[in-house]
Amino acid sequence: MLKDFVKALPPEADQLSSEVKKEQEKLFASQMKIKEAKLPVMVIFEGWGAAGKGSVISRVIKNIDPRFFRVRTMVPQPTEEEKRYPFLRRYLLEIPEAGKFTFFDGYWMNEVTGKRLDGKLSEQEYRTRIRSINTTERSLTDNGYLVMKFFLHISRKEQEKRLRALKEDKNTRWRVSEDDLRENRRYDEAMEVYSQYLSATNPSSSPWYIIDAKDRKWAELQVLRFLNQGIETALKNHSLAVPILQNTFPLNPTPLLRDIPLDDKVLEEKDYEEQLDRLRKQLHDLHNELYRKKVPVIIAYEGWDAAGKGGNIKRIASALDPRGYEVHPIASPEPHEKARHFLWRFWTRLPKDGHIAIFDRTWYGRVMVERLEGFCSENDWQRAYNEMNEFERELADWGAVIIKFWVQIDNKTQLERFTDRQNTPEKQWKITEEDWRNREKWDLYEQAVDEMLQKTNTVYAPWYVLESNDKRYARIKALRIVVDAIQKACKEKH
Amino acid sequence: MLKDFVKALPPEADQLSSEVKKEQEKLFASQMKIKEAKLPVMVIFEGWGAAGKGSVISRVIKNIDPRFFRVRTMVPQPTEEEKRYPFLRRYLLEIPEAGKFTFFDGYWMNEVTGKRLDGKLSEQEYRTRIRSINTTERSLTDNGYLVMKFFLHISRKEQEKRLRALKEDKNTRWRVSEDDLRENRRYDEAMEVYSQYLSATNPSSSPWYIIDAKDRKWAELQVLRFLNQGIETALKNHSLAVPILQNTFPLNPTPLLRDIPLDDKVLEEKDYEEQLDRLRKQLHDLHNELYRKKVPVIIAYEGWDAAGKGGNIKRIASALDPRGYEVHPIASPEPHEKARHFLWRFWTRLPKDGHIAIFDRTWYGRVMVERLEGFCSENDWQRAYNEMNEFERELADWGAVIIKFWVQIDNKTQLERFTDRQNTPEKQWKITEEDWRNREKWDLYEQAVDEMLQKTNTVYAPWYVLESNDKRYARIKALRIVVDAIQKACKEKH
Repeated sequence: MLKDFVKALPPEADQLSSEVKKEQEKLFASQMKIKEAKLPVMVIFEGWGAAGKGSVISRVIKNIDPRFFRVRTMVPQPTEEEKRYPFLRRYLLEIPEAGKFTFFDGYWMNEVTGKRLDGKLSEQEYRTRIRSINTTERSLTDNGYLVMKFFLHISRKEQEKRLRALKEDKNTRWRVSEDDLRENRRYDEAMEVYSQYLSATNPSSSPWYIIDAKDRKWAELQVLRFLNQGIETALKNHSLAVPILQNTFPLNPTPLLRDIPLDDKVLEEKDYEEQLDRLRKQLHDLHNELYRKKVPVIIAYEGWDAAGKGGNIKRIASALDPRGYEVHPIASPEPHEKARHFLWRFWTRLPKDGHIAIFDRTWYGRVMVERLEGFCSENDWQRAYNEMNEFERELADWGAVIIKFWVQIDNKTQLERFTDRQNTPEKQWKITEEDWRNREKWDLYEQAVDEMLQKTNTVYAPWYVLESNDKRYARIKALRIVVDAIQKACKEKH
Repeated sequence: MLKDFVKALPPEADQLSSEVKKEQEKLFASQMKIKEAKLPVMVIFEGWGAAGKGSVISRVIKNIDPRFFRVRTMVPQPTEEEKRYPFLRRYLLEIPEAGKFTFFDGYWMNEVTGKRLDGKLSEQEYRTRIRSINTTERSLTDNGYLVMKFFLHISRKEQEKRLRALKEDKNTRWRVSEDDLRENRRYDEAMEVYSQYLSATNPSSSPWYIIDAKDRKWAELQVLRFLNQGIETALKNHSLAVPILQNTFPLNPTPLLRDIPLDDKVLEEKDYEEQLDRLRKQLHDLHNELYRKKVPVIIAYEGWDAAGKGGNIKRIASALDPRGYEVHPIASPEPHEKARHFLWRFWTRLPKDGHIAIFDRTWYGRVMVERLEGFCSENDWQRAYNEMNEFERELADWGAVIIKFWVQIDNKTQLERFTDRQNTPEKQWKITEEDWRNREKWDLYEQAVDEMLQKTNTVYAPWYVLESNDKRYARIKALRIVVDAIQKACKEKH
């Protein structure tokens, strides 16, 4: 894309200034519209070293009210801490909330092309990264994000000139990095790598705009024009519905909830205690091993009210070293979470490698409560199966063990437990009006849960139904599944 | 994509039937909505030989009113006649009009993968075809088309079984082609080629849906579900605005109209006659050569009212063999043209190779009259520069010589010619109220024309301004440009 890029010609100086002013005013005027429409805007700047990303960003934000934007500089090298998380995480943590801009001085391109140029990414790894970036960007734009991507382009000569000037001045010398100099020496090679990357990540929903960055004011005008045009288009698409992609992930066959026998799944007290002891000891030892082998583990719980999630989680957690795990109770999203992509609050809660995260309720709320209570649009929850499968594939590719539990009881058992809670003073806090209201929608929920299990029971992040009419049975089953899965993962990691 | 495709499990027989019925009713109900929303729907079926494309199509259309759909079978081999046009043309001629379905039994995939499998497409040619298909599909969906693409998938064994059964019955023997048998013998190889194709043409705006086609009723249900979902989504996006892509085609620098001197561009009668004679003779001879060398030529005229387009065209046309050229006067689109993609009526008017098509007004109406009179949305005409550049690139890749003339006069000269027409009885038919109205918008038109020239003056389909205050000068200049361009193209084609 870069080689055959043909620059448009800038207007003459006077006109350039007056057009910049006009576009600046347009951008200024759209701040409030963006806020009202709750449009989140990501403006990503990539480009050659010394192409002037910083300078263009400062020009562009000049007139925007500071309450409406943030600037984030993303360096290509993750910290040691960041390396313990999936590649995408540190970028995704920075996405803007609805109604605001984030301007990125560098984003995920840099890390990929940098490694690519250094021969540190195999063809296979490179392709996986490209796929991750494309599915994630698509998930962002599908969920209403405007993603504007600019590549600031200068020639080898121009770059050389700028680097030399920076180096000669002792106040700016620090700005010239070894990477910049090497990029200039290997300009043609870098151009090939950049072109490949740009072409491979150029869908029409978040296309690249190549900016002739030789003249700063002209670069500013080009960026402002594309940016204003992109904002205008996005504001027109207020309640856009997006095509639902086919769910092409490898799925396990999954029975319907009503076909799963519950009453024969029982465990005597004595058997229970024995097995509990043994399994917790095993899990405790495995926790050390997975810490050493840096295997991240994600255990997700969903299930009926009063099915026994809390007690089940407690039995697992109590076997673990508290420094190595965290339980995340998931309620309705906070305002700052609601204002972002629905998976954002789970990206922020991922475990480090070697750690365990237990989620008490999960991202699957999207296709259960949010679906049934109308907290998101139909298009939103229909797309979500695929989006969640994609999300979990990222985690699996990172090396995570993912275990998803559905804690299952029958309607009668729920009624008994609700009644018991109601009638036992020390349990009354556990039962609310809302629980009773949800109970009335049992059939709708069952249908939604069945659809969820059918569509997201992937081989790399499988669902396990825990028959929990007998809570003891469910606890032992959960422990055994966790132990087996971690054992397997530790064994595979030499 | 095919190798790791995991089939969903069909419901049991009873439920299957009732769900098919439900989806059929949904499809039936959407007919009128599609008509009202003027949504054009392309439903494309590709897949293995004997996978049952025909049978699925007949099941799906069963309940649709015949006024609302057509079925088109596209064979992978173009006829000799069709080979004389660009690859895409025969497919694009069949696109549906707004508010109607076209079901395609095979579309452009077949031709590409067939040739690819036979080693008849180089890597380079293959990539060009993929790019053509992707940009064209994007142009269709950007212009409001719903494009649903299904690939009917069966195993090698199942295909073999079906082919054998067909062959054993003398009534169906004719349906088994040599291609089908070969496809079955080279199943793995074909699978690889198909998978590559599917992955390479899978944008989220017109994604692939892979259908497990082992059981026909189940295949029908899968197709109906995706189809209904796609229609539902498309109907929600009634007045969608689409991101404007950067125009990345190689452009020539272009002066503004007001900076082009006109008054010194004159030609004496005698010089004119001499040069006219010589150039027409040259052109006449070249016409034979380009016919022999199968070079297609497209000459496009735009210009101010009364600038002298008609007379200019006449001077060129009269030098040509009438069997080898056609002049297409372009007025407002007919209803059946208006109901399709705005470039469709130009795809239908392309010349065969070795022939010349002269367009008296063109597709550029989109960014002039349609823009200024509000006949299309702002998003439509803003996208159109890129769409027209893409369109012309297809023609250039096919080997066409493309010459675009802007016939330029100044405001004063137009007034003189208008007045002359008004006052001369035999010329009065040439001047209408509308011409006077358009004249009032001169400045707006000039701005739009300048923008058009700047954005579409590509190196492969350049604009030439014909200074036509002196019509003789303009005619000679046009003839010379046409002669030079054809000469060059003939020379390049050995």
